[in-house]
Amino acid sequence: MATVTVVGAGMMGAAFCLPLVDRGHEVRLVGTPLDDFIVDSLRRDGTHPKLGLGLPAPIKPFSHTELDAALAGADLVVLGVSSAGVDWALETLGPRLEPGRPLLMVTKGLLFEGGRLRALPDVVAEGLPERLRGRVPTIAVTGPCIAGELARRVETCVVFAGRDPEALERAAGLVRTPYYHVFPSVDVEGPCACAALKNAYAMGVAFAAGAHERAGGAPGSVAMHNYEAAAFAQAIFEMRRVLEAMGADPSAAGWLPGVGDLHVTGNGGRTGRFGRLLGLGLTATEAKAKMAGDTLECCEILAVMREALPSLEAAGRLEPDELPLLRHMASLVLDDAPLAMPFDLFFAPPRGPAKPGGGGR
Amino acid sequence: MATVTVVGAGMMGAAFCLPLVDRGHEVRLVGTPLDDFIVDSLRRDGTHPKLGLGLPAPIKPFSHTELDAALAGADLVVLGVSSAGVDWALETLGPRLEPGRPLLMVTKGLLFEGGRLRALPDVVAEGLPERLRGRVPTIAVTGPCIAGELARRVETCVVFAGRDPEALERAAGLVRTPYYHVFPSVDVEGPCACAALKNAYAMGVAFAAGAHERAGGAPGSVAMHNYEAAAFAQAIFEMRRVLEAMGADPSAAGWLPGVGDLHVTGNGGRTGRFGRLLGLGLTATEAKAKMAGDTLECCEILAVMREALPSLEAAGRLEPDELPLLRHMASLVLDDAPLAMPFDLFFAPPRGPAKPGGGGR
Repeated sequence: MATVTVVGAGMMGAAFCLPLVDRGHEVRLVGTPLDDFIVDSLRRDGTHPKLGLGLPAPIKPFSHTELDAALAGADLVVLGVSSAGVDWALETLGPRLEPGRPLLMVTKGLLFEGGRLRALPDVVAEGLPERLRGRVPTIAVTGPCIAGELARRVETCVVFAGRDPEALERAAGLVRTPYYHVFPSVDVEGPCACAALKNAYAMGVAFAAGAHERAGGAPGSVAMHNYEAAAFAQAIFEMRRVLEAMGADPSAAGWLPGVGDLHVTGNGGRTGRFGRLLGLGLTATEAKAKMAGDTLECCEILAVMREALPSLEAAGRLEPDELPLLRHMASLVLDDAPLAMPFDLFFAPPRGPAKPGGGGR
Repeated sequence: MATVTVVGAGMMGAAFCLPLVDRGHEVRLVGTPLDDFIVDSLRRDGTHPKLGLGLPAPIKPFSHTELDAALAGADLVVLGVSSAGVDWALETLGPRLEPGRPLLMVTKGLLFEGGRLRALPDVVAEGLPERLRGRVPTIAVTGPCIAGELARRVETCVVFAGRDPEALERAAGLVRTPYYHVFPSVDVEGPCACAALKNAYAMGVAFAAGAHERAGGAPGSVAMHNYEAAAFAQAIFEMRRVLEAMGADPSAAGWLPGVGDLHVTGNGGRTGRFGRLLGLGLTATEAKAKMAGDTLECCEILAVMREALPSLEAAGRLEPDELPLLRHMASLVLDDAPLAMPFDLFFAPPRGPAKPGGGGR
């Protein structure tokens, strides 16, 4: 039995406690300053108001003011805040971490920093206080996981991606259960890039549902599934190219981090709803207004990619006519361009100098 | 303008006429002996009874007794029968083909012949009468295409896979329209293997829907999408391994032929319905009884793969513990084994001697 502290009591942080508590660990769930109502509810009757269910009693809720107590003696710290909360968490949590104790990050991200695309766990590791730098193994949790399903113990397969194989195996060993299957990966950039990119591409896959409705169709077995499947295929094709252009291993696109996570992200989430609105013919500004209050990770990663593309092209790692779907989605979201899927530009085999890691098609 | 003869007047053969007629070609649609009621209906009022819509008037229906007239002067012949009809079609059609005139095959398949897995277009080309051998370029049409959608001119992206680049470009050039996007591929084995394998894997992806219902759940955004996405990811992971083991280019798994076609195949078709029944806990025998009369390509390809695996293993191209999902599906379908998804065996990186074409994860 170990002691595990999960920081961030939203849906994913809370859901992550289920395999931990089922493994018999002491589990401490710490709310952020925005999670007070969740912590209050958990203390009152054990109900998680966002998941809509009761959490197992052994999970101990802590408020953010009790962070020190929550971290005392923890063998593993899990960062479960949303990407919006990561700055708060690291400022608050960073100085309280301990050397040798891994930081498992459910929070994911891809940043453009110092002229290149970087995975959030690497950026976080470097941003830690001097005494901890290089001594806190950061591990990203990626792959297809709807929090509401994990909280109900539905079979789930995820990837733990970290550079330290020993820390990776230790963390995975603490969390695995008969329904939570953990696959370790020492490739960090590939899975993290897929985790970020899949939000943009899930939006693109969802265009078809909106376009079908716009054409007067009802959902059914004959709809615009051909359109949707072509977008899905182009998404994976482009993900591989982005990974190659970053200098990462492109194979992450072909299993849980890529195809798996993209497949799950369309299912009923806000990214899918946003993509459907664009498919219906709304501009991004109109669609955002309809979804006011929702975090739209798809828009965030498209802004990052627009910033990054010129450097990748200047370095000869990407041609200006590659990634037609990504570029079109960026125009929709950042310039309010109208939807016009560039199908004829899809699936162009990579040209130019040989790319590392094997070429696209 | 060209003359194109489509043999097989079922859903896919008929749907394929739409881009042809929209391009202004003379289009002749020939029914098989099983299609008489379709040809009669088309002659009566232009309605295709299985597609449930009227075909454009310029499409000329022919009965199988009029095959010679239908083939006279054709620039392109399209084989649009189901895999069950391929033997009839080739016996009847084979002797009537002409050298230099490509045979476009909507009919797909993967066969185990002479100790190895072979793509149907290659087998067909070799089975032609002596005078035609090596002189009729065969081209497979693969990728995500629901016939009912193509018949309604929904945006569709497909792959034309053939070994003769010039014939490939000629055929693609005759068929492309603003809604039918054709991507040529000189790799034949990869796309054809994916086209066959996706039927088996689509069944596996559909287990989740049945398993969720069996557990008392209703469809929704919290269901067993994590399970489904993990199965989808393992499907693509295994497709790559099968292609590698066959000595084919594994990249077909990563675009339209693999991820694209697998994505579309779950949508409301008989493969998905069969997988759902297995997920509900029925044995394959029980599920087949419920679907009596439906062709189940998933069962056919699993029988082919069970026959092929020992040779691939004996040749050192595959380890006995690889492809856990495929092997489990074969046990379900061929041995009436109960469903027990082997999640913990998923995503194992390939071991043993280096495989051609770059390794899995």
